[in-house]
Amino acid sequence: MTPYEFRHAVRNGTFRGPTAGHCGDFAQANLAILPEAQAHDFLRFCHANPKACPLLGVGEPGDYRIDTLGRDLDIRTDVPAYNIYREGRLAERVESLKDFWQRDFVVFAIGCSFSFEAMLAREGIPLRHVEEGCNVPMYRTNIANRRAGVFGGELVVSMRPMRGADAIRAVQITSRYPGVHGAPVHIGAPAELGIENLEHPDFGDPVTIRDGELPVFWACGVTPQTALMAARLPLAIAHAPGHMLMTDIANTSLAVF
Amino acid sequence: MTPYEFRHAVRNGTFRGPTAGHCGDFAQANLAILPEAQAHDFLRFCHANPKACPLLGVGEPGDYRIDTLGRDLDIRTDVPAYNIYREGRLAERVESLKDFWQRDFVVFAIGCSFSFEAMLAREGIPLRHVEEGCNVPMYRTNIANRRAGVFGGELVVSMRPMRGADAIRAVQITSRYPGVHGAPVHIGAPAELGIENLEHPDFGDPVTIRDGELPVFWACGVTPQTALMAARLPLAIAHAPGHMLMTDIANTSLAVF
Repeated sequence: MTPYEFRHAVRNGTFRGPTAGHCGDFAQANLAILPEAQAHDFLRFCHANPKACPLLGVGEPGDYRIDTLGRDLDIRTDVPAYNIYREGRLAERVESLKDFWQRDFVVFAIGCSFSFEAMLAREGIPLRHVEEGCNVPMYRTNIANRRAGVFGGELVVSMRPMRGADAIRAVQITSRYPGVHGAPVHIGAPAELGIENLEHPDFGDPVTIRDGELPVFWACGVTPQTALMAARLPLAIAHAPGHMLMTDIANTSLAVF
Repeated sequence: MTPYEFRHAVRNGTFRGPTAGHCGDFAQANLAILPEAQAHDFLRFCHANPKACPLLGVGEPGDYRIDTLGRDLDIRTDVPAYNIYREGRLAERVESLKDFWQRDFVVFAIGCSFSFEAMLAREGIPLRHVEEGCNVPMYRTNIANRRAGVFGGELVVSMRPMRGADAIRAVQITSRYPGVHGAPVHIGAPAELGIENLEHPDFGDPVTIRDGELPVFWACGVTPQTALMAARLPLAIAHAPGHMLMTDIANTSLAVF
């Protein structure tokens, strides 16, 4: 299936569920939608925290079509599940935004680690959470995001354990893809990030760390979601975790060198 | 002083001693000189082990001038001190090769970590052995070099401790310079390389490793020297440790991207 076909399968209800593993050569995106009144602050927040919030695209106010992300894409119907937040709390999970759309909504599409994981896997670097069939472990850190208006909070990181030589290769590979979180932000001592126990992630699932392996930490797309919730906006919308927006952007096209 | 002026200061005896810290923007080189009979094997050895033996230049048999390394360069006189090895043992240390030169000698100039250390320092990454005013610690590993003819042995690595975020940046920076050892070969667990105790390097000096720091290991230019000695050639010449060949090659010109 092409991303175009995939989006139409979502739109007409044929496909529901998490998007991991589908259309593997194409970028999937984290989605954030908020009223124009807060959109400028959020855009500045993303710009100031590019490792956690690498923007793949931003829509014109009111537009639910963003051609740069995909042909004939309709942001109201093409994501398998949406979370609607009111005052920072999950109010509803829906499968379409047609009844919720506002003329002042601004759409943000933020790069996702699925893209760089595809590149790592292609180069033979094992991903423990994939081997163990669970979600990648994610942790809140004590590293403050750069604040912009009402948006602040702390960086959230994902963690992938690997041997030293693989960690070096992973730095090289992911450095090429700043649009999908880029290079890791830290290797080794979790205490440097304020993480006390790797066995108890704040999001996702714990994974095995073997002898001689190092924890490698990447900035995570959950960061903008937590910032969005912490800002307690009257209304904000995001994709439901794991239910991403499928774009027409080839992962390979994101390489900067 | 320009590298040209520096070489002439060495040639006329004005400068003697270690070359670290001189002409910081230019590449210094490890030197190996051996008879043509073994030169092809050694060239194949360097080619097969490029991280430890990145070649900056190879002379024509008999030539002591190598224009690609430096203007008016004379390999017989422009290095502050030479070690002469016979049957793999240090036989003599001399300040000129004029009395030793043979028409079948082939010169090998091999990239040196001084170049990438300059790049790391320029980007604000602290180097512990520089801070502590000693030589970088180096270790024999259990990683076999690819054998070529009489040349084999094990990889020797240098080690620089740093915090995780600096290690990531160091991978990015040194990856650009494969001509001077390139990216690290390992980060973290020394046991993975067969190194038992970081406090007892095989060459150089031990350095402090602070809490939260990782040991970062690079392939080291001592590797070809140990391979040369282990081969027990009737005659081989190298620079005396720390007394390198100054070239006209700007470090910045070695960046591959």
